[in-house]
Amino acid sequence: MQCKKALEEAGGDIEKAKVILRKQSSAIASKKADRTLGAGVAAAYTHAGGSVVAAVVLACETDFVSKNPEFQKLAYDIAMHVAAMAPQFRSREDAKEDNMQVAREVFEKEVANVPEAARRKAVEGKMDSYLRERVLLEQPFVKDASITIRGLIDSAVQKFGEKIEVVRFERLSVK
Amino acid sequence: MQCKKALEEAGGDIEKAKVILRKQSSAIASKKADRTLGAGVAAAYTHAGGSVVAAVVLACETDFVSKNPEFQKLAYDIAMHVAAMAPQFRSREDAKEDNMQVAREVFEKEVANVPEAARRKAVEGKMDSYLRERVLLEQPFVKDASITIRGLIDSAVQKFGEKIEVVRFERLSVK
Repeated sequence: MQCKKALEEAGGDIEKAKVILRKQSSAIASKKADRTLGAGVAAAYTHAGGSVVAAVVLACETDFVSKNPEFQKLAYDIAMHVAAMAPQFRSREDAKEDNMQVAREVFEKEVANVPEAARRKAVEGKMDSYLRERVLLEQPFVKDASITIRGLIDSAVQKFGEKIEVVRFERLSVK
Repeated sequence: MQCKKALEEAGGDIEKAKVILRKQSSAIASKKADRTLGAGVAAAYTHAGGSVVAAVVLACETDFVSKNPEFQKLAYDIAMHVAAMAPQFRSREDAKEDNMQVAREVFEKEVANVPEAARRKAVEGKMDSYLRERVLLEQPFVKDASITIRGLIDSAVQKFGEKIEVVRFERLSVK
């Protein structure tokens, strides 16, 4: 239904329709942002041989969704992503100020030769890519780099009609 | 071999022989305490339905041991134990002082009516059982309450001939 409407709106252009759909799912996700996460599933992924284990808690609103195999598959996929991509923070807000401070100092040294007018912007650019690489929600999904983890969750919100959030993740490695 | 010797030493008394063996394995474990943990395995246990996930890293000295299915089973069993018993600390040394302070204050209130001479001992007794319940290594193993997790690891040290340690554990639950 939604897809057909988006295709019409995009005048039959599939790529354009995809963008419209993605925008819609992000809008739907933010509409549901103040609902209560009363259910969810904990999932673990063990990397071949047991060198790495990743675990996530993917929360939703009701057991109706948390018991859905597709929802559970999503939790497992995100655990696999965490094992592979080793995110450090869940979101930008979760990146602690003291961690950031160290990175900022390194980048400030790196741009010491940049003219002063451009220096601040250069540091911000470096901080931005530093975070984009380390923040779970902003990382490209390991099984489909065309979508971020946030995008993946936004589509799930649209599919299941509930607020969905990664509330915790851990990654344990042997070395 | 070891069992036969212990049985002889105990004059055929199986219970006595068990105590002797346990003492020996603990002695062997402490002899290996300064060796290097160069290998290990990460294992995860998911509780039925995905309400709880527990993960541990069980470290040893060589890949020869870490690839042993019995060693991997031990890591999985400890993960299952963590899911079931929800330990808060790995060892007494890992129990943070601020956490302890809160418990100590509660216990001090509880024994306010105990005569002053006995009060300190009463608090220490309460602290001891508080920790014994929450420290992974001191908890009775969920699959065999006759042995603690430390005892379980000590026997593995004896069996595999390497230093073995739980270096990290995490427990993630939905609620």
